[in-house]
Amino acid sequence: MQNFVFENPTRIIFGKGAIARTGGEAKRFGNKALLVYGMSSIRRNGIYDQVMSSLNEAGLSAIDFPGVRSNPVLSHVMKGIETAAAEGVDVILAAGGGSVIDTAKTIAAGVKAEPGDDIWEFFTFKKRIRSALPVVTVLTVSASASEMNPTAVITNEKTAQKYTISSPLIQPRVSVLDPTVLFSLTPECSAYSAVDIITHMLEGYFNNREPESPLQDRFVEGIMKTVMESTEAILTDPRNYNARANIMWSATLAFNGLTSAGMGPVSYPAHMIEHSLSALYDIAHGAGLSITLPAWMSRAAPGNPSKFARLAREVFGVREINDVKAAAEGIGLLKRWFSAIGSPVSLKEAKIPENEIGRIAENAAATAALWGMKSYSRDVIAEILNLCKL
Amino acid sequence: MQNFVFENPTRIIFGKGAIARTGGEAKRFGNKALLVYGMSSIRRNGIYDQVMSSLNEAGLSAIDFPGVRSNPVLSHVMKGIETAAAEGVDVILAAGGGSVIDTAKTIAAGVKAEPGDDIWEFFTFKKRIRSALPVVTVLTVSASASEMNPTAVITNEKTAQKYTISSPLIQPRVSVLDPTVLFSLTPECSAYSAVDIITHMLEGYFNNREPESPLQDRFVEGIMKTVMESTEAILTDPRNYNARANIMWSATLAFNGLTSAGMGPVSYPAHMIEHSLSALYDIAHGAGLSITLPAWMSRAAPGNPSKFARLAREVFGVREINDVKAAAEGIGLLKRWFSAIGSPVSLKEAKIPENEIGRIAENAAATAALWGMKSYSRDVIAEILNLCKL
Repeated sequence: MQNFVFENPTRIIFGKGAIARTGGEAKRFGNKALLVYGMSSIRRNGIYDQVMSSLNEAGLSAIDFPGVRSNPVLSHVMKGIETAAAEGVDVILAAGGGSVIDTAKTIAAGVKAEPGDDIWEFFTFKKRIRSALPVVTVLTVSASASEMNPTAVITNEKTAQKYTISSPLIQPRVSVLDPTVLFSLTPECSAYSAVDIITHMLEGYFNNREPESPLQDRFVEGIMKTVMESTEAILTDPRNYNARANIMWSATLAFNGLTSAGMGPVSYPAHMIEHSLSALYDIAHGAGLSITLPAWMSRAAPGNPSKFARLAREVFGVREINDVKAAAEGIGLLKRWFSAIGSPVSLKEAKIPENEIGRIAENAAATAALWGMKSYSRDVIAEILNLCKL
Repeated sequence: MQNFVFENPTRIIFGKGAIARTGGEAKRFGNKALLVYGMSSIRRNGIYDQVMSSLNEAGLSAIDFPGVRSNPVLSHVMKGIETAAAEGVDVILAAGGGSVIDTAKTIAAGVKAEPGDDIWEFFTFKKRIRSALPVVTVLTVSASASEMNPTAVITNEKTAQKYTISSPLIQPRVSVLDPTVLFSLTPECSAYSAVDIITHMLEGYFNNREPESPLQDRFVEGIMKTVMESTEAILTDPRNYNARANIMWSATLAFNGLTSAGMGPVSYPAHMIEHSLSALYDIAHGAGLSITLPAWMSRAAPGNPSKFARLAREVFGVREINDVKAAAEGIGLLKRWFSAIGSPVSLKEAKIPENEIGRIAENAAATAALWGMKSYSRDVIAEILNLCKL
């Protein structure tokens, strides 16, 4: 076990009817909220009304800030910072999935930035976040775990860079998780969410400094099996409460620090390459990951066959005793499962031109350099992208 | 999944050399600490010096408060409250295992009690804890998870009652976990710790309101397997760092709210009966649990054979397809494992007189009534205690 610090103070309010508690929870941080959300879906499915009625009941006023899109962009964040500053809000309330929460987190930090600070410099690690407004979330899509972690990912559309910030100051103080909000997700969105959850964990499972991690491995395998069987259940019956609840809590635990504690620094190559796919082609994050993860795994397995074989045996019940063969079999089964739930596993399926691999690799190599991933040169990334053609 | 609130803000500093950070962490809460510890062991093994030197370096002064024994008693807690109040300390620093931490937690609440409050009324639920000094811990025995939960167990030796308090106010703000401190534990103490960790989880696994809990079940099974294989490793090689580290982090996660979140209210019958064994005969808590848990399981299995069979198959690799038979086989294997690591599995082995079952049941029935466990009458408890004779 590697040395670590674990601290995750987010308060989780989980279950049917939990949204009614939003106002009471947010009230601890002030009287005026910026309500950040996406497009019209939360107005259609009633979540907006539930949140507003809870805020009203607790005596909070809310300033609407809609319009967050998936792969949220810096220009929109900047508008949110202006609105929050002009209105003098006390708390940023996100009602949405990872994109909305990440926008809310960045607004929370941006409002408290020094005058003249360039917000993008938080993402390029030139400036540090020193203060932020409190963030409260009402989760509507379970995948990113942004509701219980200190991270936000934003795309700078001018530079085509999809980059990350991380600070305990922007971690949500309270997150409200009601599994019934997931009932109305499309099968596509549910599938991409499952891919995202699984990828968060598998990157840590394979890319760490700890050769002996039975506890963390079992957490990853246990959460992964639960997510897989629950995703199959909700694709048949979208209103299966227990399956939705299992996915919702699994998604949070998959990327809130639990499965990586004690593993040393973890790297995220499948995410690193995917960020370029979604920055350049605006595909869904999960759809990009189901392409990059198996390709990365195929290239990496020969370097650590026993760990890849372990996954194959524990999660997919592979019985092959030869590690190299078991590893390959497991990767094949993962890819087939991604396909079966409706997530693309090749560039072509996602309508990404194969002849632009050079351009994608160029873009991703810049992220790799920023994230300190020295072994991922442009050529190595291109090699992985070539495996995304299969 | 049942509705739940999950909030666990304790900051964990984990790893080799972590104790050197104690002073810096404690300093956030003030300049003067009450240093609560047990007998002379932390002076012999160097932990006392490590803690003191870290406190000195951070500019904290410390008032010594040694003498906590296992099954910590109210009279000693009262002395600690007097000392803390007289010295005007800012923070209660526990250097020890569950007994020391529970003493520290109760002192922290007691110092801030209203003048004239009877501290024992916190334990009999007649009064609520409304304020407490911050608690910081340096863990030296991993079992109770008291380092990352809001609970404390104290014995009132005048009334022979071993009772519990729980409040977020007494939950440690910071806990320092250095697995090397476990190197000097006796095999006996290591075995009792393993029993305690496993029992914490299995009580929740079997005694909850949620019939469908694949995620939580997998957490319990994964932690349990890790604790079992790591305990076997350290009984052979007490200085196996990874095995000690796996046990240390497993123990914390086994009873910090993670494995029971979403399970609804959980009850603790094996603990309830054990509290009477250790209150009346002053045996080690783990030694008592390895007697009461299998007995309780044998009586409960016929009411829920599939869950007991699941444990047998997942943890012990039992292949029997009949649930009733598999359940019995699993309980037998658990009992055999407790024996193999050196923990008693019958009253006789713990030198508890079998003819005093009536007296023990009487004592435990009072705890059951206090804890609202209506189905555990004196007779039912006596029936379980009779199974402790085998």
